Formats: sequence, C-alpha cells, structure tokens
Amino acid sequence: MTNIKGLPFSARGDALIGQEMFKVLDKAKKLELDGKKVFHLELGSPCMPPPEEIFKDTIKALENRLTGYTSSSGLLELREEIGRQYSLNHKNKISAEEVVISPANLLVSQFMDLVCDRGDRIVLFSPVFPTYLAASAYIGLDVQDIPLSSSSGFDLSVEAVDKALSLKPRAIVVNSANNPTGRVYSQHLLEYLARKCDEEGVWLLSDETYASIAFGRHFFSLAGLDHPQLVVISSFSKIFSIPGFRIGYAIANKKVAEKLTLSNSTLFSCSPAFTQIGCLAGLRQLSDYENKVKSHYQEVMQEMAKIMRRSSVVEFSDPDAAFYFFVDISRTSLKDTEFCELLLSQKYTATTPGSSFGKQFDNFVRIALCGNIEDLKEGVCRFMEFAEEYAAKKTAV
Amino acid sequence: MTNIKGLPFSARGDALIGQEMFKVLDKAKKLELDGKKVFHLELGSPCMPPPEEIFKDTIKALENRLTGYTSSSGLLELREEIGRQYSLNHKNKISAEEVVISPANLLVSQFMDLVCDRGDRIVLFSPVFPTYLAASAYIGLDVQDIPLSSSSGFDLSVEAVDKALSLKPRAIVVNSANNPTGRVYSQHLLEYLARKCDEEGVWLLSDETYASIAFGRHFFSLAGLDHPQLVVISSFSKIFSIPGFRIGYAIANKKVAEKLTLSNSTLFSCSPAFTQIGCLAGLRQLSDYENKVKSHYQEVMQEMAKIMRRSSVVEFSDPDAAFYFFVDISRTSLKDTEFCELLLSQKYTATTPGSSFGKQFDNFVRIALCGNIEDLKEGVCRFMEFAEEYAAKKTAV
Repeated sequence: MTNIKGLPFSARGDALIGQEMFKVLDKAKKLELDGKKVFHLELGSPCMPPPEEIFKDTIKALENRLTGYTSSSGLLELREEIGRQYSLNHKNKISAEEVVISPANLLVSQFMDLVCDRGDRIVLFSPVFPTYLAASAYIGLDVQDIPLSSSSGFDLSVEAVDKALSLKPRAIVVNSANNPTGRVYSQHLLEYLARKCDEEGVWLLSDETYASIAFGRHFFSLAGLDHPQLVVISSFSKIFSIPGFRIGYAIANKKVAEKLTLSNSTLFSCSPAFTQIGCLAGLRQLSDYENKVKSHYQEVMQEMAKIMRRSSVVEFSDPDAAFYFFVDISRTSLKDTEFCELLLSQKYTATTPGSSFGKQFDNFVRIALCGNIEDLKEGVCRFMEFAEEYAAKKTAV
Repeated sequence: MTNIKGLPFSARGDALIGQEMFKVLDKAKKLELDGKKVFHLELGSPCMPPPEEIFKDTIKALENRLTGYTSSSGLLELREEIGRQYSLNHKNKISAEEVVISPANLLVSQFMDLVCDRGDRIVLFSPVFPTYLAASAYIGLDVQDIPLSSSSGFDLSVEAVDKALSLKPRAIVVNSANNPTGRVYSQHLLEYLARKCDEEGVWLLSDETYASIAFGRHFFSLAGLDHPQLVVISSFSKIFSIPGFRIGYAIANKKVAEKLTLSNSTLFSCSPAFTQIGCLAGLRQLSDYENKVKSHYQEVMQEMAKIMRRSSVVEFSDPDAAFYFFVDISRTSLKDTEFCELLLSQKYTATTPGSSFGKQFDNFVRIALCGNIEDLKEGVCRFMEFAEEYAAKKTAV
C-alpha cells in the first residue's frame, strides 16, 4: 500500500489552502460543542430577515416538484430580470445572453481558469478577499499584490491602477464595495481602470458582491461598460442574507458568457431551479428591500464605531458599505493570529486574522458585524476589553 | 477595443466542450417553444415521485430559515448517515471524516484536478460518460480510451484492466453501474482493478451514481476497500429523481477527503443546508424506496425492449441497471449525429448521439427511458419507425 503521507497529489492538489474564515469557524464550533457561548465576528454570514417572497417562491417551486435540470446558463427569467435591473442605471442594455448564473465564489475560479494559464500574472489590490488568494494559489498564478494605503482608508488610487497595469498582468481583480475594508471606489477611478484594461487587453474581474449594501459613497457598477474582457460578478448571498442559497451571477459580453456557460455545464451542469426562482422573487423586491438593508447596516456600523472609539487602542476607517471593520491592532503587543486565537480562547469571540487578506496585514483583524445586535455589542466590547488588556501589558513591559 | 473573436482565453478556456446532451436539450426546447410536442429520450433526468420526506424536510429547513453557510465538507449528520449505510455492506467502517458532500458532476473535475497535472495520462473505459471527456479535455489530460467489447454488452474484462494499467496512467475512471451501457461489472473484476491500481500507485475514481438502480447483476461498491488512492463518488440525483438538488458525495480516505473539503472551500464554500437536509431525509427511506425504483425501471426496460425487438433494425444489450439503452444503429444508412438530428426534426424525438460517449461510437445512439411511460412508449415507437424507414432506404439504394 502506498504511504498515505506521500500521496501523489497534483500541483493544484498540493497548493490548496482553503479559506481561513472557515477554519476559525471550525474552532469556534468546537467551543460551542463544549457548551461555550461564542460571539461570532468572523464570518460574513448576514442574518437580516430575507424578503418573505424568497421563501414563498422557493417552497412553491419545491411543492411543484421542480427537481429536474435547468439550462446551464441559469433560468431565463432570472437572467432577464438581472439584465433589466442593471440596464436601469446604464446606457448600455444588458440582455439575458450576457448573464450567467453560478455561485459567485465559484465564478472567481471559473474566471481565473478561463482566462489564465498556470504561471500567468494576476494583480490584486490588497487587503484582498481571501477567495482570490486561495483560487490563485490553487490555479498556480503569479499573484502580484498592490497594497492600498491605510491612511486613505484603503481607497483605490491612480498610482495603484498605473502600477497594476505596469506589471503587464493577464488579469486584474477589483472589488468595490470592498471586503474587508468596506471601501467603495470612485466612478472616475473604476472607469480609468476599466479603460486601461480594455486598451491594453488585460482581463478585468469586478466583484460587486456588496454593491447593494453601499450606504456611504455612491456605488458605481462596471456592468454598464461594453468591454469584451470585463467580467462583473455579484451574488444574492449578502444583500438577501441567504449565503446558503449559493446563487450568484456574472455579467459579461456574449462570447465570455458562452464560455462561462460551458464551464458550468462541464463542472456542475446547472444550479437548482428552486433556489433560482427564490432569488428571482427576491430580486423583484430589491429596490424597497435594499434601502432597509442599507439603513440597518449604516446604523449598526455607526453604533459599533462609537463603542470602539471610546478607546484609542485600535484604529479603523468608517466603511462606505457592507458590515466589516478592518482594524489596526498594532498598539497591542500581538500579531493577528495570536490576537485572534487568544481572543477566542479567553473571551469566546471569533474574528479573522488580517493576514488572511494579504500577508503584510498581520497587524490587522477583520470583524464582521452582521449577526444579531446584542451579540455584536457584547462581541465588540469583549474585543475592545481584550485589546486594552494587551495594550496595557505592552506598556507595562 | 480588442477583437472579440480573438479573445485571449486560457488553454482551459479554449478547450471547453460542455455536454452534448445539454445542446440536444436546447434544440428540443426550441421546438417546444414553437408549439411542438417533443418526446424526450435524451437526458437522464428521472421523474419517479421522490420520497415525500425529501420535500417535507427541505421545506421545513427553509421555514426554519437555515440560509447560512454550512461546513465545507457537508452537514455532519448527512456524512454520518452515508458512512453508516455504506458500512452496512462492508467489513471496513466508513466514518463521517471519509465522506465529503459536493455535486457528483463537480467531484469528477475536483478529483481530476487534485490528482492530475496538465498532460497527465488518464484511462477511461468506453463508451464513457461524457462529463469525464469534457472534464479531461478542460484540464488538458492525455485521455487514453479503452473500448469495451459490444459483443459482451460492454462488460469490463481482465484484458481491459491489464491494458489500462499497462498504459501507466496517473488515474483511471471506472463507472459501474454504467452510463450509457447499463452494465454492472463483477465484484471480481472491480476488486482486481482496484488492487492493481493500489499496487501500482494509480489513482482510481469509481463513479457509482447508478448503484441503487441495479436490478440485474449484483452491484458491488468499491467504497469498502481501504485504498488510499481510491475515490468513490455517487449522487442522490438519479435514485431519488432530484437532479436539480445538485447533491452528491465522495467517499475517500481522510487525507483525500481533507483535500476535497479544501477544494470545496476554495471553489464554492459549501452546499446549501436545506438540500442536504432533504437528501438526509431521503437517505433514511432508501432501503424501502430503492426496491420500488429497481422494479419500476426493470419493468420499463423490459417493456421497451419488447417493443424494440419487434424489429431487428437496431441492436442493444439488456442493461443490468439504470434506464439507458445504448443502441447500435449501423443497419440504418445514418451516422449518429445525422440520425439524432433527423429524428428530432422529423419525429420530434430527442436522443443523444453515440459519439458523445467516445468518437468511435458514431453508429450508436443512447436513449434514456426515465420519463413518463406513455411518452416513452411513443418516443420509442417513433425511434423504431424512423430507424426502419432509413434501413429500408438503405436497402432500396
């Protein structure tokens, strides 16, 4: 029998790193199995009540036994509605043929695999959503990471865009509204980035998953631009608090959309009909619902910021969108992973180490503020208490 | 702007071929949009009433708003129950840590990507389930195809196994019960194949999706063997007539199961909780339900075989499992794709060309007999009518 330790995996198999957040979640769950109450500030798993229509229509579809295969590109009605809603804000009309349904997380790997070969260069602006790092490592890409400046709240800059293009990459990924920084980039800079990519034949992935939760700066979507090498992705997970539905979408020119459809067909055939039907019902409620969501998260973020600013032991910028603070913990004596591990074991509060978002961010921690408000308050208080204890220790030394 | 025709896709992007069945389905749907009644013998989308418990529990989970993320390896309860049921028939106990939940179709690509690098050799026994060809082409594998003998009803043989190993592949895929031939391979030969792979350090994927629909020869699962480079996959799609749930699973040693979990985490995070809960409810009914399914398909296949054997214009073997006939049409004047296209346009009956299952099978057509019985009868009659017309034309010439 082969030695199990030395199983001959492929280069991809060896390069799998997974997602750090899920490892933190696993540790937290172990504590919970031991009967501990854990405060979850690690995973961006939102819990606002989703529109009732989502459940009504998903359940109706199940009652109607819609259990067969669907088209690999996704349900036509859902793709049409997505096209229609995006077309409202843009001069270019988006047709159903330019929309493909797939989990947004998977679309990151599908995009990278469709446009990059092993060893190809990809540019990411950091701090960066960990899935981009995990997928790039898995595929074997040459990741060039351009750190955004913390003093600007990690905003995109002309310099960062010029630097990205100067590296002559095969592809660039941009993520506005950003996870983990909550930053929304300006229309001017996003258009500049997209134009440069188009001129120089560089593929551009615009991940707009948090677009509908932009409560600060005005959000600009690149979906309206008619650039053949531009792919926009988004998801219903965050805006509707239904990450478990695993439904997202890509908007791209027809040629690229066809490739993504073939990729779906090859990899997983299609997404379930009933979850797509549920998302369609949600999408029809979006314009009303998203205002509630925006106000909710804006209030939560302001309230939590107030609590955290009672002390100056940590620093962070107010986000334009989403429900994350990317917190500078350098005034404590701890690096990020030690900070997160001790915080979890001493105060039963789970957070994500900053280095998950780029190695150099080991003096940052991300906290996700999308759970129920009382638990969030308690979690944030414990977080601050813990940070102050360690800052005091540092001073004492 | 870049020339759209010449978009610079990756080698994988260029190699995407998708699944032929879905293209046939698209043509058939166009005819239906024009108001035609089409008889569907192309897609293996079964329509027996699934166990009610599946819907009851899926809907209950939705009513309980289980819309968050789950573990990347899948729900513990479902993995435990799968392990328990497989352990019943084997001396080796299978634990939850050896089970990973993922769509079975995706598991084919996940397996290939975990164990093969671009250019690595993979052996398939043909006729072959098209997903293996599509995934191999996408990944860029050196596919070596070993045709099984039609005179033995495409059964596996010692010679075929020896030939497979002699090619020194990185991996071999075996599919018993087989799609499209319906053949169940003997325990003796499957164990011989698995032992040889284990001895020579060759990865083995055993796709057992149709295991629960084996009504003829006794089905033997490789899941009981303790070989580190063996991965068994299966699905709830076919046995429960719920392909739209997109839930399957892999059984593998812990080291490989961990890799598959990391692959899930990297690619798509996790599967929905509610569909997994529904499948768990179904699995608890399996032992009663599968007997109904087996009798049903055995009767259908016998009845359809009787209709088709009224003429000797086509030939096929009686299957041991599933709901497909792989039909030799060489006595008509037509090659498979022309046969399928004309049959669809003239008799509104959709089937899948044999060459989808391996290029050399261009004198075969697969018919899937899993729809409602009256439509199946009509479709089969039209199929035979059409075959006889073209056989007569051939004779006339």
